Amino acid sequence: MELRKDPITQSWVVVGHRDEAPSAPEGCLLCPGHEAQIPAVLAIPPQGPWGVRVIPHIDPLYHIEGEVRRQAEGIYDTMRPIGAHEVIVETPEHNRRLSQLSNEHIERVLLAYASRIADLKRDPRFKYIAVFKNQGPLAGEEWTHPHSQLTATTFVPRRIKYELHAAREWFEQKERCVFCDIVRQEDKSGQRIVDTQGDYVALCPFASRVPFEVWLLRSKHNHLFEQPRSGSNRLHLATLLGRTLRRLEKVSAAYHLVVHTAPNTRSPKGQLEHYWQTLADDYHWHIEILPIVQTVSKSYSIKEVYFNALLPELAAEQLRKLDPNL
Amino acid sequence: MELRKDPITQSWVVVGHRDEAPSAPEGCLLCPGHEAQIPAVLAIPPQGPWGVRVIPHIDPLYHIEGEVRRQAEGIYDTMRPIGAHEVIVETPEHNRRLSQLSNEHIERVLLAYASRIADLKRDPRFKYIAVFKNQGPLAGEEWTHPHSQLTATTFVPRRIKYELHAAREWFEQKERCVFCDIVRQEDKSGQRIVDTQGDYVALCPFASRVPFEVWLLRSKHNHLFEQPRSGSNRLHLATLLGRTLRRLEKVSAAYHLVVHTAPNTRSPKGQLEHYWQTLADDYHWHIEILPIVQTVSKSYSIKEVYFNALLPELAAEQLRKLDPNL
Repeated sequence: MELRKDPITQSWVVVGHRDEAPSAPEGCLLCPGHEAQIPAVLAIPPQGPWGVRVIPHIDPLYHIEGEVRRQAEGIYDTMRPIGAHEVIVETPEHNRRLSQLSNEHIERVLLAYASRIADLKRDPRFKYIAVFKNQGPLAGEEWTHPHSQLTATTFVPRRIKYELHAAREWFEQKERCVFCDIVRQEDKSGQRIVDTQGDYVALCPFASRVPFEVWLLRSKHNHLFEQPRSGSNRLHLATLLGRTLRRLEKVSAAYHLVVHTAPNTRSPKGQLEHYWQTLADDYHWHIEILPIVQTVSKSYSIKEVYFNALLPELAAEQLRKLDPNL
Repeated sequence: MELRKDPITQSWVVVGHRDEAPSAPEGCLLCPGHEAQIPAVLAIPPQGPWGVRVIPHIDPLYHIEGEVRRQAEGIYDTMRPIGAHEVIVETPEHNRRLSQLSNEHIERVLLAYASRIADLKRDPRFKYIAVFKNQGPLAGEEWTHPHSQLTATTFVPRRIKYELHAAREWFEQKERCVFCDIVRQEDKSGQRIVDTQGDYVALCPFASRVPFEVWLLRSKHNHLFEQPRSGSNRLHLATLLGRTLRRLEKVSAAYHLVVHTAPNTRSPKGQLEHYWQTLADDYHWHIEILPIVQTVSKSYSIKEVYFNALLPELAAEQLRKLDPNL
């Protein structure tokens, strides 16, 4: 396996065969009973029966050991797929969904995300930690047992890079955070707000790419998901996430959820990487949820021009009316 | 319907309900017999029974008449969806595929693409003309009758913009076209070349995002698909496209095909738009074909990091071995 980038698309692509997956034993590997076989990187609580468990991916895209070895292949760039690939097992119960867990349990899942991001950022080789969840077969979920995944990569994914630059340019022009501006404008108009809890807000973004797209943000500025500011209460975020997912699942069984946080700014010498730090400061973590609703929009997204048949203000209105309870 | 852009994603999104499609009459609207009902924008040949016909989309995303009206909605950008949305009917025969047409007939389809791009570029409101084809239900094809689609938009899609900038930066550094460099390197190694015909080459790009991704390029520099350079022979391109599609259809029934050409550089006053002209000069038209092969790659593409389980050199080798005939 190799990471390849070509000069036109500017995307890093992992290419090559994955290792053969170890022959699947009886039953679900994420269910209790495989603790000895697959030791956890993190367990919450650390002792006794676990509620949330983070394990290495059994067939990882990235491997933790070795040198990155950035090389040229003629005009192209390559490097080895050094990184981490982990699975966050959200609950021991096979037949539950994240949306069906208690607020306190969802808070533990978010704590697992944050702990792993913070821990992996201690390794200065890893420039970005992406946490994502594919819910439902239509979203390409790898196992039916409730789980999220995480990758730590030696590069910042193109999409995040563009967001960081967009936020930086906005700040240069206005000396304000673009995400804070969005929250302020949405809060004022109210028409695209789905729900709020404490400092946190769930909204359908103005230029939603898909029907019922929802972003979760903290209304007060903070660029690091993994490092809550004093006074912030993650239980509020967990509560809002649970309510939002229960609403969304009434319109769509499948979704992608992605946590966007600032890149790693630690340099190999223990100092700050000024390039990334400059970009990170103006960023604002948020969670993007993209439901998979069958529409014609897919056919137009290839050109990076999305067609979304549902106005986000109507989506927000519809979601607000839905019961956020089980 | 409205075009919306938000400051983070930087993508234009068409949002809002499409007009109700006119109640479908008996049979296929793209089949012969509807010429009076849906007059053609272009027919090849212009007289007698048609071989290729370009018609307005019956339920267009963009409308040709009116002012663009670029406006701010607070911090967001909006404009009206002014543009063109057309359908290229590739053959009168309902049960044929593009890959099954004669080389001369495919040449006529490419001529229709080129003529419509050139014609729509006379309107300085339209900054970009995108031609794309969704083959197969998995690719989200709108009708089963063989067809491509075209949109003329008042903006350059984000993806094309990034490509233009990447090509421009390469040129600034090296005073060479990046696409010409790619063709030269691929030609030298040969391992990712699928096929060639005259000046044209079909290759699996080094950082293929999906298994069996293929690009078709002219090996000699030209930025305008719609304006062949002297000595180039579009029949060669048509022949190569036919052979490539017949190969691809042996590994995947569905694909997206997108023509990438330079943006419109005509200003409302009939002069050149220097900004776009600077970017256009260093561009190189090409055709991208992205087959839809069922893999896990989909689940990772949301973060703009693609996982492609098939090495492009192996894909090219496999495609070379496949019979390019019907």
